Amino acid sequence: MPYELYYWAGIQGRGEFVRLALEEAGAEYVDVARRSGGESAMARLLGNTVEHPPFAPPFLKSGDLVIGQAANILLYLGAHHGLAPPDEEGRLWAHQLQLTIADFVDEIHDTHHPIASSLYYEDQREEAKVRAGDFVKARMPKYLGYFERVLEKTGSGHLVGSGLTYPDLSLFQIVAGLRYAFPSAMARLERQHPRVVALHDSVAARPRIAAYLASKRRIPFNQNGIFRHYPELDARA
Amino acid sequence: MPYELYYWAGIQGRGEFVRLALEEAGAEYVDVARRSGGESAMARLLGNTVEHPPFAPPFLKSGDLVIGQAANILLYLGAHHGLAPPDEEGRLWAHQLQLTIADFVDEIHDTHHPIASSLYYEDQREEAKVRAGDFVKARMPKYLGYFERVLEKTGSGHLVGSGLTYPDLSLFQIVAGLRYAFPSAMARLERQHPRVVALHDSVAARPRIAAYLASKRRIPFNQNGIFRHYPELDARA
Repeated sequence: MPYELYYWAGIQGRGEFVRLALEEAGAEYVDVARRSGGESAMARLLGNTVEHPPFAPPFLKSGDLVIGQAANILLYLGAHHGLAPPDEEGRLWAHQLQLTIADFVDEIHDTHHPIASSLYYEDQREEAKVRAGDFVKARMPKYLGYFERVLEKTGSGHLVGSGLTYPDLSLFQIVAGLRYAFPSAMARLERQHPRVVALHDSVAARPRIAAYLASKRRIPFNQNGIFRHYPELDARA
Repeated sequence: MPYELYYWAGIQGRGEFVRLALEEAGAEYVDVARRSGGESAMARLLGNTVEHPPFAPPFLKSGDLVIGQAANILLYLGAHHGLAPPDEEGRLWAHQLQLTIADFVDEIHDTHHPIASSLYYEDQREEAKVRAGDFVKARMPKYLGYFERVLEKTGSGHLVGSGLTYPDLSLFQIVAGLRYAFPSAMARLERQHPRVVALHDSVAARPRIAAYLASKRRIPFNQNGIFRHYPELDARA
């Protein structure tokens, strides 16, 4: 039985971290909300019809199991598809990196929505400029520098040990997204983080990921997702 | 060998979710940063001296293992101290709830720091008022309502199954913190979330937690932590 992934149909968003793992695993899955009537099906599962209702998309249905929170879904997929170390120490380390990536994603989102997710960007543009300025100057280098150091330590081109794990896939997505959202800041920062860039390139070149990226399953970056390109937010780089 | 907990000495912060689990487990631990020279020791471990450097406190040292990210530490402690279900489904569900609590904590933090953690509250007070207004009106009821529904489903007074798990301890902390930070909004919302309040009370009455709360190990809420009381942010309730 294929997995069922539930996530908003029009954006990569937090669902993309799950999609990349499913694609790299070669797992069969249905992207439910992109099918006719799919968003209604998603809404039903967010209600009280399941034993363990998720708070928000993405969530993954695996048989009767409904798993929410992107990092938690990856914890599950990592264990079942060889995308995480089998030992406890490695498993925890991979998950720790993923949770740090999740924090990074939250901060990226809040550059364009510092006041409220329920308001339009245009209604918080001035605040977004200030928040994005701090993000580009302080937070983006701090996170990228951290992952660069982790990669320097392993020396393997991977974040965890010597092989691919799910945080590698997620860091690929971070680089791809930052290039879309903050091209000017990212062009400058990439020079200082060659290992992070090399990891991006090696993930992009993996046969299953390359095929996915070239397919219609990969939704293009757009102005509704987490990574949005507003030139005025990139300008302070 | 006792655990070593590393977290900022003057605040409950994200370290408190770990402290509560250690206390409930009756685990021996040293709160390293609160000892003389402890914050320097913490800074060393945040550097490149360990194989798996954390991005930020809190982190826990268990023998040679260094584990970062509060939810990840709880994943570890839950498995080793009977604070999570032993089966995969229950373990994932407990962790999913914890990650949702972590998202809630991030939003609570950002009510007083919507623009940048590196700036003073006073420099983002106007933005904080707008963000806190949305938080109190929309986000706080959404999160509390979610946990109320989860408690309604179990009917056990616990979030997961019929016994105490680590997300129960964390939800206790959320209620305690919201009472401190948003007393007016919380007084109103508590009436609509009786199960959440009852869970808070039952956790507070557990012998080890009660002893902890009465001890000097429990740092009082203060204006440097995640939960801060600014009357102007509570006013829109």
